[in-house]
Amino acid sequence: MSTESQVRADDRAHVFHSWSAQGLIDPLPIEKALGSHIWDYTGKKYLDFSSQLVNINIGHQHPRLIAAIQEQAGRLATIAPAFANDKRGEAARMIAEIAPADLNKVFFTNGGAEANENAIRMARLHTGRHKVLATYRSYHGSTATAITATGDPRRWPNEPVAIGVVHFWGPYPYRSPFYAQNEAEESRRALQHLRDTIVFEGPATVAAILLETVVGTNGILVPPPGYLAGVREICDEFGIVFIADEVMAGFGRCGEWFAVDRWGVAPDLITFAKGVNSGYLPLGGVVISDEIAETFRERAFPGGLTYSGHPLACASAVASMQIFKDEGIVEHARALGDDIIGPALASMKARHPSVGDVRGLGVFWAIELVTNQDTRDPLVPFNAAGPAAAPMNAVAAACKERGLWPFVHFNRLHVVPPCTITAEELREGLEIIDEALTVADGFTA
Amino acid sequence: MSTESQVRADDRAHVFHSWSAQGLIDPLPIEKALGSHIWDYTGKKYLDFSSQLVNINIGHQHPRLIAAIQEQAGRLATIAPAFANDKRGEAARMIAEIAPADLNKVFFTNGGAEANENAIRMARLHTGRHKVLATYRSYHGSTATAITATGDPRRWPNEPVAIGVVHFWGPYPYRSPFYAQNEAEESRRALQHLRDTIVFEGPATVAAILLETVVGTNGILVPPPGYLAGVREICDEFGIVFIADEVMAGFGRCGEWFAVDRWGVAPDLITFAKGVNSGYLPLGGVVISDEIAETFRERAFPGGLTYSGHPLACASAVASMQIFKDEGIVEHARALGDDIIGPALASMKARHPSVGDVRGLGVFWAIELVTNQDTRDPLVPFNAAGPAAAPMNAVAAACKERGLWPFVHFNRLHVVPPCTITAEELREGLEIIDEALTVADGFTA
Repeated sequence: MSTESQVRADDRAHVFHSWSAQGLIDPLPIEKALGSHIWDYTGKKYLDFSSQLVNINIGHQHPRLIAAIQEQAGRLATIAPAFANDKRGEAARMIAEIAPADLNKVFFTNGGAEANENAIRMARLHTGRHKVLATYRSYHGSTATAITATGDPRRWPNEPVAIGVVHFWGPYPYRSPFYAQNEAEESRRALQHLRDTIVFEGPATVAAILLETVVGTNGILVPPPGYLAGVREICDEFGIVFIADEVMAGFGRCGEWFAVDRWGVAPDLITFAKGVNSGYLPLGGVVISDEIAETFRERAFPGGLTYSGHPLACASAVASMQIFKDEGIVEHARALGDDIIGPALASMKARHPSVGDVRGLGVFWAIELVTNQDTRDPLVPFNAAGPAAAPMNAVAAACKERGLWPFVHFNRLHVVPPCTITAEELREGLEIIDEALTVADGFTA
Repeated sequence: MSTESQVRADDRAHVFHSWSAQGLIDPLPIEKALGSHIWDYTGKKYLDFSSQLVNINIGHQHPRLIAAIQEQAGRLATIAPAFANDKRGEAARMIAEIAPADLNKVFFTNGGAEANENAIRMARLHTGRHKVLATYRSYHGSTATAITATGDPRRWPNEPVAIGVVHFWGPYPYRSPFYAQNEAEESRRALQHLRDTIVFEGPATVAAILLETVVGTNGILVPPPGYLAGVREICDEFGIVFIADEVMAGFGRCGEWFAVDRWGVAPDLITFAKGVNSGYLPLGGVVISDEIAETFRERAFPGGLTYSGHPLACASAVASMQIFKDEGIVEHARALGDDIIGPALASMKARHPSVGDVRGLGVFWAIELVTNQDTRDPLVPFNAAGPAAAPMNAVAAACKERGLWPFVHFNRLHVVPPCTITAEELREGLEIIDEALTVADGFTA
């Protein structure tokens, strides 16, 4: 058997894949990856406009990051969480240094779901309250608490009741749940809706508001001006913990270290994963304010995991953050959004009848496709699967044919390349998307 | 600042530790680790009788495993779960090959908690039932479903109600919940108790029985002959999924690849982590029977994570399993238990009035300490903390003084060194424990 057929055979026989009907998928074997590209076994090269699951912020196989992992592997791969370890401490210090306000301590996990699990746990114990408010159109992870907080249909097959979670509606100017005419109105009305929900739930029962700073998979929904500051005020007024989920939005994705920096707002807890080390090793965590850390000074925090603060994972985070600083990756990502992606998508919207809305910042953008720009009807129905999803599948296929690996969700194409993509690569990819949109145009009415 | 004081300063200022009151701990900085030993920054060397959190089955910094990680890091650190990847497929195939019966597919996670979360999810969707039966005296992880299933007090601060989980009592011959006089009676009565519990819960409501094959942190409770086979029969009779949690017991710890092999019993799902790659990278997963995999052939499995089947983690598992085979590590662990640990602990029990019970297999043993061998009163109260835990702290301190890092839980000292420990190192460690037990003897009455 050739290598490719061996990879395919092992995969089909033995690998059980995420979020999939195992008999209806045909996973493409990938042979290698470098920078902004991945290659299959036929030698076909794809420009990675997905950053995989929006986690390869530093690009694939960054030589300096790989060298740091190799070096630390030779020094010390792992040690139990109860010990002090140089890389664990250094990673925590570097994260605290870039985090806003007095978010000075870090609880490390293996990924974003566990980060949200533990942030919610901290908020509940800190406040003595139980309810968590989270938005519809959100994704917070797939373990029980995280999937319960998730505001998309993925939670329903898992959790028969949303215990302790109340879902509310966040701002979404293009499809305003509040019939707002502009961003300022959207922000005001969304805050009023949140406030009303809290008042009717009973403020003394609400432990936390959990928000993706910029909603990721569910639409790259950028909060309108004033919204996050308003959430902060509401939290202060009612003694509620503000948890910002920056698993996808943090570490350069939005052209900031933490996306909240864009709006100068400091939450009480920030959850992170993905971009902290681009997923070269599994790593996530919670950055914790002094006030919440104080709650657990003489009272044990009831949570942990074998690999909390994993030295090899922490070493990769240290190296990645240092590379980000040395190479100006955060600033690069911001400039790519401002100078190239934003203008290019605006131009596509002007020329393609299928483009209803474009939005984003940094290297975190969505193109929302519609059958009609006036009615704004989505190109495929919400949560479409099977034949109903055909138009979006056709757009994705057009991208892949042309050598671009896209990120597609519902009726949206996300533009989420590595933060390190060059201007030239980015322009090349945007041209491919421009061409693929003509396929989408064919489905408009 | 010296390196040690820098490590300590970063740790105290920025690292939020698992399961701890942050102000009441003083984590020891560890500088290096090799084979069965760890060293602090003063140069003091400890024989690791804890395997950290019972995960370093292959020993610290195994050169061949480190080299494999370094090589794969240079090749491909990560790629999204939706692709096929050689190391992902190879790891899954190798695990399927050593797994019992028709457990042929593997869903990879980052650790044991997520493995149990997803196994329970599979069982609920496969059966269309909701309740999970799990034992008191168990630990299954700290995410919401896993901690709810956990049968020790760590779950209470986290989950106000045990949603969908019913706890029952497993066999524990030394402190029989069933007043049994011998192992055969304990097994029979424990099965009757389980059966009665199912009948009164309503068999049609029970999705799964979740059991640690050998209970780990909560006591190294080895199931008496016939128990696991009886659980299998009950599951078959009522259409219940049998989930064996082998996060701690698997991959050599019990002198078997999977602990169930010792009793020739095949569960429907096995969860694993820790020993699969000794935690050199975070990795866990679920091994899935053909029947349960079939449920998700045309129906999507609703779960996933960014790092499912992480190539670098999977490569470390492939290398670790190959090293286990080449070096005969499973057989070595079995022989250490049969030839050295078992006889040594029996001798300690005969000589030390503080030793109530010794039990285990492979490199997975407990010494249960009592104030009186006749009354069997534990040396410290259940779940003791603070001054009440002083006698056990004194025993632990006696071990550390003599250069052994122990694993202590409640009134027990666990003997859980790496599976690769040499006979000489093992004897040296057992002599230290023998001496430390004289400290425990001082607390007997």
